[in-house]
Amino acid sequence: MDALTTQTLSGVQTSIEVAGTVSFALSGVIAAARKKFDAVGVCAVASVAAFGGGTLRDVLLDRRPLFWIEQSWYVWTVLALCLAAMLMMRAKHFKPTEKSMQWPDALGLGLFAASGTQIALGMQMPALIAVLMGVITATFGGVLRDIVCNEIPTAFHDHHPYAVCAFAGGWVVVLLDYLDFYPNAVVAIGATTVTFLRLAALQFEWRLPVWKIED
Amino acid sequence: MDALTTQTLSGVQTSIEVAGTVSFALSGVIAAARKKFDAVGVCAVASVAAFGGGTLRDVLLDRRPLFWIEQSWYVWTVLALCLAAMLMMRAKHFKPTEKSMQWPDALGLGLFAASGTQIALGMQMPALIAVLMGVITATFGGVLRDIVCNEIPTAFHDHHPYAVCAFAGGWVVVLLDYLDFYPNAVVAIGATTVTFLRLAALQFEWRLPVWKIED
Amino acid sequence: MDALTTQTLSGVQTSIEVAGTVSFALSGVIAAARKKFDAVGVCAVASVAAFGGGTLRDVLLDRRPLFWIEQSWYVWTVLALCLAAMLMMRAKHFKPTEKSMQWPDALGLGLFAASGTQIALGMQMPALIAVLMGVITATFGGVLRDIVCNEIPTAFHDHHPYAVCAFAGGWVVVLLDYLDFYPNAVVAIGATTVTFLRLAALQFEWRLPVWKIED
Repeated sequence: MDALTTQTLSGVQTSIEVAGTVSFALSGVIAAARKKFDAVGVCAVASVAAFGGGTLRDVLLDRRPLFWIEQSWYVWTVLALCLAAMLMMRAKHFKPTEKSMQWPDALGLGLFAASGTQIALGMQMPALIAVLMGVITATFGGVLRDIVCNEIPTAFHDHHPYAVCAFAGGWVVVLLDYLDFYPNAVVAIGATTVTFLRLAALQFEWRLPVWKIED
Repeated sequence: MDALTTQTLSGVQTSIEVAGTVSFALSGVIAAARKKFDAVGVCAVASVAAFGGGTLRDVLLDRRPLFWIEQSWYVWTVLALCLAAMLMMRAKHFKPTEKSMQWPDALGLGLFAASGTQIALGMQMPALIAVLMGVITATFGGVLRDIVCNEIPTAFHDHHPYAVCAFAGGWVVVLLDYLDFYPNAVVAIGATTVTFLRLAALQFEWRLPVWKIED
Repeated sequence: MDALTTQTLSGVQTSIEVAGTVSFALSGVIAAARKKFDAVGVCAVASVAAFGGGTLRDVLLDRRPLFWIEQSWYVWTVLALCLAAMLMMRAKHFKPTEKSMQWPDALGLGLFAASGTQIALGMQMPALIAVLMGVITATFGGVLRDIVCNEIPTAFHDHHPYAVCAFAGGWVVVLLDYLDFYPNAVVAIGATTVTFLRLAALQFEWRLPVWKIED
């Protein structure tokens, strides 16, 4: 891979991570507002939702400096987003419905899953670990958001495929990477697959099996 | 310590970690099924219960790559276990009672506490830190499992000695290591001590003191 | 900075961290006792409250060995404190009120925020990241304490400025550091600012805005 490609890849990856970050930060703002958190709580939950998955991935893989520490404008972006969202909610009685969040959330899921998998593959991780790193990147922000809000994580409980879409898309990334596709194409196709699967799951109301113990 | 000993030790340590991992993964499956989690939630909680303690120990001690990343068949094992357990629960109305879980759990507790302490001693940690690393390895999977399930951690709340058994056994490991016992013997004796203490605690209904504040 | 200054700074920093650690450990003891945790739970929650913030800061910045691992007498101190507190509670029907905790807590908040910010600045972190590291050092012990106790974190929810004081004081540290103040003075002034702001916030009942979504 020549220098130009690396640079382009890095540019595309950055755009991807910003879009995903904003989506997830917004989900954190809404979750915190629902729980009547104060302004600090809103910013904290938004940051946890936006950076939690990528941070856990980087801590597990020992990648430093963390992406939001190296490029601290990420943090400024999330703080500005929180401020804007809070002002809008106050001024316009803006009520983000669960439905309105589904599109950005599905986009973030796809982007984070694909880029997380690719980062781990770039560190020569085995395929399963790379796919799991994509799943962790894409879902653990939301899991930590729910834990901080003292809720059972939606990702484990709502019976609609969510992490499963990230898991499936991760294997697409592994396959395309193995077939030596152009890195940008790998991420783009992987992310599109995940987002598409997630939207299809919502549209057609696919459900995951439950294995409950009868008491 | 010659090469052969190192290899044998590593073989014994691997068997230990597999047995402990399976025990704890099963406790995660059961906790998730009780909460009516979906299939993703079951796998996630089982993984957290199985790998959480060892992962936290390795992050705190800065040991990389993590054991389940270096040897990704650990993850396959846990995923296969989840699948098998879920199919069994569905097919046979398998209801694991709390009592049936006590034996594997006591075994996992002993194995993880002893091996965690030994790993930390091998990194020249002070005795107290090594013992605490054993306790963390043995108990934090369960603590994280309970946090993810939105429960107060059992380890802190049920008034039966659990972490205390791991703590006591850790000091046995420190003592035997100081007396230059053969490493395999150190782990075996340490793990047996912890498991025995835990089973005795359950059998004779030992209770920890509570210090509650009267409101 | 000559060797003597480094040594003095390190001595002052140690005293600071001990005072903050004790304050936060006590808050953990009280939270655990309120929830009727057993002795293990009390020690665990006290440790999480005392070491959680600094540990998360060090993991995020990749500073090792962790301060409580390198200097394991920190852990002994917290364990001894737990024992003493539990005996006192039992013997004297000691009931620590919320009010009695406000002073040590405000002190711990200031000390941890100032020293956390300074540590991050010493690692050439950008100003915002350094300030956030101070906030994380000062508040995440309490956040983790509340999560372990299965409560919504007070820091996000009680509408009284808490993290905000740490945030403001962090910028004071950044400013004084930029103006080349003597390092001990930077920490002292920063910590005093935070503690003062927090006590003022309590005294005058300042409140943070809430942005709740009407359902």
